[in-house]
Amino acid sequence: MQEQTPKRYYDNLVRHIESRISLDSEEKDYICSFFRLRKLLSKQYLLAQGDICRYDHYVCEGFLRSFYVDGNGNEHTLHFALEDWWISDLNSFLKQQPASRNIITLDASVLLQIDLENREKLMENVPKMERFWRILNENSSMAQDQRLLDTISMPGKDRYLALLDRYPHIEQRLPQKHIASFLGITPVFLSQIRKGIAKR
Amino acid sequence: MQEQTPKRYYDNLVRHIESRISLDSEEKDYICSFFRLRKLLSKQYLLAQGDICRYDHYVCEGFLRSFYVDGNGNEHTLHFALEDWWISDLNSFLKQQPASRNIITLDASVLLQIDLENREKLMENVPKMERFWRILNENSSMAQDQRLLDTISMPGKDRYLALLDRYPHIEQRLPQKHIASFLGITPVFLSQIRKGIAKR
Repeated sequence: MQEQTPKRYYDNLVRHIESRISLDSEEKDYICSFFRLRKLLSKQYLLAQGDICRYDHYVCEGFLRSFYVDGNGNEHTLHFALEDWWISDLNSFLKQQPASRNIITLDASVLLQIDLENREKLMENVPKMERFWRILNENSSMAQDQRLLDTISMPGKDRYLALLDRYPHIEQRLPQKHIASFLGITPVFLSQIRKGIAKR
Repeated sequence: MQEQTPKRYYDNLVRHIESRISLDSEEKDYICSFFRLRKLLSKQYLLAQGDICRYDHYVCEGFLRSFYVDGNGNEHTLHFALEDWWISDLNSFLKQQPASRNIITLDASVLLQIDLENREKLMENVPKMERFWRILNENSSMAQDQRLLDTISMPGKDRYLALLDRYPHIEQRLPQKHIASFLGITPVFLSQIRKGIAKR
């Protein structure tokens, strides 16, 4: 695979923003100037539980997972992020307090990151970016609310099928144990679900 | 209790918005003109599952609960809302699709409501309202994310104590069965937790 040039990563970000608000070319360049490119290898930590989350991250390419480690050393998958998503610890980022989670790459990843001060400055200088982040946050709130409802209303098997339906390649990219953890079911139960589906 | 005049309800809304963005007096009046006062008795439905959620609602006074009813007729409490909070079915409101939940008052309630078209118009004409809703949505996302983490990381008893700590009067206002449902535990288990605490 040919490596993308930095320019193309920034073009991804611009397309992502333009799908929500319109920008002229001067604004595009100005907005991009606030973001720094960051490349990570696979299995590299972007954030460690207890550290301050200094940046919000737009994922240009790659795959990341956020997880909480409890007092007994058990991992609980909270979120994952694919290309064209954002990932951070929002509480830690906005309040600049210790993070409640780790964020790790599962594939080599390329991110565009912005810190809180620059994000504020960008919204001050390009007020329509308020609209962009307002819409982004609304989409995030809707997704979280849907996840809460799914957890309550759907059996584990249906939630697994809904996840595959929404992200057809997730099984090739996310190990079964993390899928189980994300769905809030045991790996053994997920294995039983998969066997049941394969039989039919 | 003396009944509040409409003017005082609108003042609540203005104070709520001003705690996030600054407004001049012309803007205050203009913003208020987009909201309609709505009074509900106790146990009255604001939204029925399957209907379109036409409005987002700011709670001036009262207490509301949103809940999903599954195929077996079991209620699952999703959210509740006190004074100075907002309540709607966000997916239904933003996408104008059938609601996945009911919203009911638990006390007589006074709301200020705005529909999607007017909300859009208000943001167009007063762009700083984008900032207000961006901040509101971020707070909502943080709260939802914290709730997910609490559900994973804290035993039922600790989540119950954290709820009481955050909302000291919740027990006087929300029946035990709804508190149990909100925490994702059985009413029997909640009763055991409360007995255990009372013994000490």
